[in-house]
Amino acid sequence: MRNILFTICFDGSAFSGWQIQRNAPTVQQAFQQAFSALFGSCPDLKGCSRTDAGVHANMFCLSMKTPLMLPCERFVAALNSALPETVAVTSCREVPEDFHARYDCTGKEYRYKIWNSPIRDPFSRRYALHYPRPLPESLLHESAQFFLGVHDFSAFCSAGSGVKDTVRTMTGASVVREGDWVTFCITGNGFLYNMVRIMTGTLLGVAQGKLAPGDIPAVIDSCDRARAGITAPPQGLYLHRVYYDGLSQ
Amino acid sequence: MRNILFTICFDGSAFSGWQIQRNAPTVQQAFQQAFSALFGSCPDLKGCSRTDAGVHANMFCLSMKTPLMLPCERFVAALNSALPETVAVTSCREVPEDFHARYDCTGKEYRYKIWNSPIRDPFSRRYALHYPRPLPESLLHESAQFFLGVHDFSAFCSAGSGVKDTVRTMTGASVVREGDWVTFCITGNGFLYNMVRIMTGTLLGVAQGKLAPGDIPAVIDSCDRARAGITAPPQGLYLHRVYYDGLSQ
Repeated sequence: MRNILFTICFDGSAFSGWQIQRNAPTVQQAFQQAFSALFGSCPDLKGCSRTDAGVHANMFCLSMKTPLMLPCERFVAALNSALPETVAVTSCREVPEDFHARYDCTGKEYRYKIWNSPIRDPFSRRYALHYPRPLPESLLHESAQFFLGVHDFSAFCSAGSGVKDTVRTMTGASVVREGDWVTFCITGNGFLYNMVRIMTGTLLGVAQGKLAPGDIPAVIDSCDRARAGITAPPQGLYLHRVYYDGLSQ
Repeated sequence: MRNILFTICFDGSAFSGWQIQRNAPTVQQAFQQAFSALFGSCPDLKGCSRTDAGVHANMFCLSMKTPLMLPCERFVAALNSALPETVAVTSCREVPEDFHARYDCTGKEYRYKIWNSPIRDPFSRRYALHYPRPLPESLLHESAQFFLGVHDFSAFCSAGSGVKDTVRTMTGASVVREGDWVTFCITGNGFLYNMVRIMTGTLLGVAQGKLAPGDIPAVIDSCDRARAGITAPPQGLYLHRVYYDGLSQ
């Protein structure tokens, strides 16, 4: 059996996340249907993460074991002809037999995009949060630096995740403005349920004066979800990059 | 009566163009409904152009006469609260009594956006043309220069427009690449039915080797629609800017 790693991107507004569900369209289902339409059946797919309904991916990885001997570039072309327009396969490669897209993932970068203008942007209503009030990006950047390092992030985790180990390591955090666009970028070895959206909501709390940047460490240390900000809506969030050790990107 | 000029932007994928129609949602209808919901009724709206179904506007102007004494900034806020998310009012100003958004328009800039990569971009399927084969942008730019000046553009006009004077003056033309994005920008004093989409289709003909850049003048001179290229699809086209003499932008 070959073990194949696919890299895809998708417009999450069309889907209820990655993982297959009854009665809701998911990216996993779209991929399985495309693969089955081409090759008769689809092997079990291992996705790098779940992703919520409405969340986008500039890069998402999935692996599968298959006896098919098709060259990788043919897989890309065939799947892109069979997938809906809301998903694209960007690359495909053979990986070692024991590789698993989720368990072998060593890091991820998420981005949260905000359209920061009093007037909404009709073109980004599905692709960013519209935030009409001022966003002092340097204050938000300063706040985001406190996320760096090894922390128990349970204050930034929605109920219902079932995860026991809530310690994660953040290795990159920034808030950058380009005109009316403000983007929060966060890189870490793993993320809890809704973690980036709650981090974003907490940064918005700083913008609204509910918190000072220096309050962030106490919010983290509290391990109390009620101390952090709102869960920002899904349409601004992008899984931007997925890292694996020993695989060139 | 006051004469008010509104500047709006809209995501054309939600609409069958500007002009009101039976049984199809249009931007004019959306604006009329929002205005009527706020103020009881809506005066006759003069739009700067018709725009086709699926075509977008970064800037579109419309004027109306109204006895309402609301300050302009209040009009903007009220209309944005009543319009669908696919339309936004960006500004509003009082203009002379005889001003007409269509007849007083002295120029327009259109842009046509192309996602030029073998792999489609799920996020721009409604906002650009996906063109997977190579686009030699300098050759297209060279070709576009032949559009400049005063010409009879009837070769670049779809049937059914009913316009008799097909002479227009083009004052700016460029094709620019930024990564996988290629944008055709064209500025002129007026445009015929489907003119920018046919110009774009003709540039794609150059990319495909059907025409050389130096063939463009003969295509223009022929006044023969069959000599020009295809009508490129609407989702890549944006009305980008509207000019009026004597009004600061």
